[in-house]
Order: sequence, then structure tokens, then C-alpha cells
Amino acid sequence: MSILVVGSVAYDDVSSPSGSVKGILAGAATYFSLAASYFAQVRVVAVVGEDFGPEQENVFRNRGIDIRGIEHAKGRTFRWGGTYGENLNEAKTNFTELNVFEGFQPRIPEEYQDTEFLFLANIQPLLQADVRRKMNGVRLTGCDTMNYWIQRAPRELAETLKLVDVLLINDAETKMLAKETNLPRAANKVLAMGPQALVIKHGEYGATIFFREGAFGIGRHPFRAPTLPIEEVTDPTGAGDSFAGGFMGYLASQGEVNREVLKRALFYGGVMGSFAVERFGTERLQSLTREEIEARFQIFRELTHLE
Amino acid sequence: MSILVVGSVAYDDVSSPSGSVKGILAGAATYFSLAASYFAQVRVVAVVGEDFGPEQENVFRNRGIDIRGIEHAKGRTFRWGGTYGENLNEAKTNFTELNVFEGFQPRIPEEYQDTEFLFLANIQPLLQADVRRKMNGVRLTGCDTMNYWIQRAPRELAETLKLVDVLLINDAETKMLAKETNLPRAANKVLAMGPQALVIKHGEYGATIFFREGAFGIGRHPFRAPTLPIEEVTDPTGAGDSFAGGFMGYLASQGEVNREVLKRALFYGGVMGSFAVERFGTERLQSLTREEIEARFQIFRELTHLE
Repeated sequence: MSILVVGSVAYDDVSSPSGSVKGILAGAATYFSLAASYFAQVRVVAVVGEDFGPEQENVFRNRGIDIRGIEHAKGRTFRWGGTYGENLNEAKTNFTELNVFEGFQPRIPEEYQDTEFLFLANIQPLLQADVRRKMNGVRLTGCDTMNYWIQRAPRELAETLKLVDVLLINDAETKMLAKETNLPRAANKVLAMGPQALVIKHGEYGATIFFREGAFGIGRHPFRAPTLPIEEVTDPTGAGDSFAGGFMGYLASQGEVNREVLKRALFYGGVMGSFAVERFGTERLQSLTREEIEARFQIFRELTHLE
Repeated sequence: MSILVVGSVAYDDVSSPSGSVKGILAGAATYFSLAASYFAQVRVVAVVGEDFGPEQENVFRNRGIDIRGIEHAKGRTFRWGGTYGENLNEAKTNFTELNVFEGFQPRIPEEYQDTEFLFLANIQPLLQADVRRKMNGVRLTGCDTMNYWIQRAPRELAETLKLVDVLLINDAETKMLAKETNLPRAANKVLAMGPQALVIKHGEYGATIFFREGAFGIGRHPFRAPTLPIEEVTDPTGAGDSFAGGFMGYLASQGEVNREVLKRALFYGGVMGSFAVERFGTERLQSLTREEIEARFQIFRELTHLE
């Protein structure tokens, strides 16, 4: 089935203990769509500048991603620069140039109207809500956000949360959104805001999905999928978006979205996130095989499987 | 089977967002022995001062713990005071009074010589090695340490690590000990220092056990047991020692120590750690039932169990 992501395409300058790169293709929609492309037909709505050409288009096209929704605007593409220290958990932002992304007004091509799965990457909550309302036929909507919107646009975000099925955020964002430090209690507060399920990403420790009572079948227990860095962690940028791509992509690849499917999707999210961080930018996500993906799924499954 | 713990008994003053308590019975050996007491016959070697009397002895005796190895010295018992902020991950130490613990020279009662399992809680590595050498008949030795010894007594610690079977430390300690930030690689470096297995405690995310090639059976994949705070986290003090108590206690309760037993022990470690933090000090560990422990084991098992 098809999946549409709305979000940023960017050029990043990244420094980490493994080295430095400049002007590499990045952005939430890029990481997401490459990760999801191993599971489903992916469509992208984003905006790029005049510095985005055939070379970058081919990164998407080589993975069969539909980029008719990428709008070309006058000016430069969104640019970001960051440095990771030894612990690799948080980047120091060196610069942010919004450029053409500043006036981003997502336009959904007519041909995308039949998309079944929607992912609203981290953009202004009002824009997320607007896109969601325009895509009335979607079966399931995933959504990301960040501290910035939780603090600066709480009312807009509250409206958006009523329109999404699965929210994917990290521990700190969950606690901030819920104003509550106990994670399961914070999760329940966030679920009361609208989503049927909440995926909390724990970085190198995996992710936990919490369900609304009765959502996606019976039961109320949360579920955790672990991860483990298998290779060197070179560049953590895009790990969360790659996680979302694996998670949403796997859902879109299945006939039905039930709890067992959501649990496996959580593992695939961890798998794609763990691949993404092995090289700078999207390099690793551009040339994976389904065999490599399945092999890592098995490693992560065995990591917590009790006989 | 029997298990001996050598470590500290203390009185703690603790402040957390849940409240404040003063002079409560604590210390690594206390948390460890109470947690382990639900699985095996526990024996303690520690030192206390003149402020330790029948009331405190009864906390151990009520759980059937053998305290003939607790030495009574002149002076006051070890005291520690700490404050936890909102994130609860790290305490700010307000004071440390070593008191009688400063000159602690572990003496093993003759009656303890037949103990099968040994846990060396966090004390000077030279003392740990000395105890281990005196206990030649033990089947398996677990060991804890901390940043302080990794930095101040690296050579003594290296000697101790050659004498232990399972080392239980946290993420930061593992990376510091291995001088390596990638966790699986750091784990392999630590295993090369001596232990057959390394348990890395991830706090609220559970723990991972890494095995030396060929140790405890075939296979080389690590294993992760998750945790999740079920109730309020009131006082994180002693979570690691309670984890160790559940882990070592479960091992001591089994006939054979193989990989499947070690995996389940990792879950029981998480279970006992999660109970410990629900109340101040050792309150929750004093009055558990095996039914409560098994129920939580099942919750944690289902937390990552894929059909």
C-alpha cells in the first residue's frame, strides 16, 4: 500500500567523532521515505530550492519513491549544521537556515489523494492538521513533533493530536507534553489528548508503544522493541525519522493494522533507525537489501526472546 | 542454594520529588540481601556501628537472612545523604560519612565457607579480590564496581576482574572501563578483562547481558531484559543493588547456570529493581510475595514478547 510523508528535505553539515561531512542530502522526509521504501510505495510532499537537482532526485527515484509532491521554489534548500560529541545523544546545532522551508505550505498533488497511510513529520502543527484534513481517505496517520512546538504552539498541537492515530516522540517530549515524569502515566495523559497509540522512542534502548484502552484490539499492556548498536554509530541524525519510516512502512505493507502488526512494526522501526546511524546522512539507507533488514530483525527479536 | 553478599550497610537521608526521609536503613548489602532473600538463603558480611540494633537486625531476620557476618564496630554506621531532582536519574550527594565503613576489613565466618554464590558489592577492589580468594569453593561470583574505582584503582580493579564470573555495572561505567563509547564493543573489551558475562544496567530501560564466546553454553548474542516503571518512582537509591539481588538470587535458586537461566535472571533483576524504587529505602523489598514477583515477571516478559 502507499504512504505519504510530509516534511523537510535538507542539506546537512555534520561533525561527529567519526568525521565531518558538508552539504549531504538529509531532512526528515528524506530519511523517512528511504526507510519506508523497503516496505511500501512512498510519496513525498516537501519543498526544495534551486540547489536541488537530478543528483538528489535520483536518491529518491533509485528507491522507487514518488517525488511529484516535491515543490521546487526559488532560493536555497533548508540547511542545518550540527556537531555530535562523544556521547552522540544530542547534537549541538551550529546553524539553521530555513530558506525555502520557511514559507512551506504543503500542497498535495491530486494523484496522491488515494494514499492509505500518512506520516506528518516534524513541522508546524497547523500545517500538519491542514494536511491531515486534506487527506480524508487515509486509513492511518502517524505524527511527529518536537519540544519547540510543545512549548511554543501547545494549542495548535492539541488540535493536531486529535486528528492522528499514532504519535511518535521521544521520552523527553512525552514528559514535557504530559507535564509528568513517570513514563507510563505520561503516556496515558498523551493518549487522552487524541492518539490511539503512542510510540516513545528511547534512542539506543529501543522504543515502547502504549495503547489507548481498546485501540487496535484487546489488551492494555504496552510493548517494547529493543535495539542495540550493531556497527559504529557514525551519525545519529535522522534516526528518529528512519525509525518512523520503518514503523509506518511496515504497517503500510500489511493488510491489517492490529496489535501484533504494530509490535512487529516497532521492531522494524528500530531496525531502520539502527541502520541509518551507521553512516553519515542517508548513505546506509540508500543501498540496503530486504535480507539485511530481516537478519537484523531476527537479531533484535532474539535480543529479548525468552524461551 | 546459599549466596553471600559482602558490602555496605548504611543509614540514608533521601529527598526526592515524592518526599524526604532521614536515617533509613539502606546500603548495597541491605538492598541486595533483601532482594535475593525471595530466591535463596542469603548471608551477609558487612560492618555496622553502635547505632545498629535489634530493630535493624529484624529487617534482615524477618526475611530469613543470616547476619552472623555483620560485624559490630565502635562508632557510627556508614551514613549517606542525597537528593533526587525531577529526572530521578542521578542523586546529588549531600554528605557521605564513612564512619565504621572506612576501616572495613571483611571477615568471613567459618560457617559461610560452604556458600555457593558470592556477590561482591561496590567496595575497594582489593577487598573484593581478598574475599573472592578466601571463598575458594564458590560456584559463581558476581561483582559490582563504580566510576570512583575505575578511575582511582584501575590496577587493583583489573586484578579483581580476573577473579569474577559476572560483572554488573551501568552504561557509563562500562564505557569508562573500556575507554570505548560503542556499547557492544565496550562490552567485548570488558569481557576480555576477565568476566565470563557482563550485565550492563540501563536504569529504567532494563539491562543487557553480554557473554564471552563459549561462556555458559553456545552462542554469542547478547540478551536484553526490559523494565518499565509500574508504580511511582519514589526513591531510585538501591535499584542497582536490588537488581543484582534478584539476578544473583535467581541464579542461586536454579540447579544449573546456563544461558536460559541467565536470561531469566536478568528479568528477575529488573523485577526486583522496579519494586525497590517504589518506596523509600527498602520498605517495598521487606514485604513482597512470590506471587507479586511472578506477576511482574510476566508483565516484563510480555512487554517484549513477539508471537
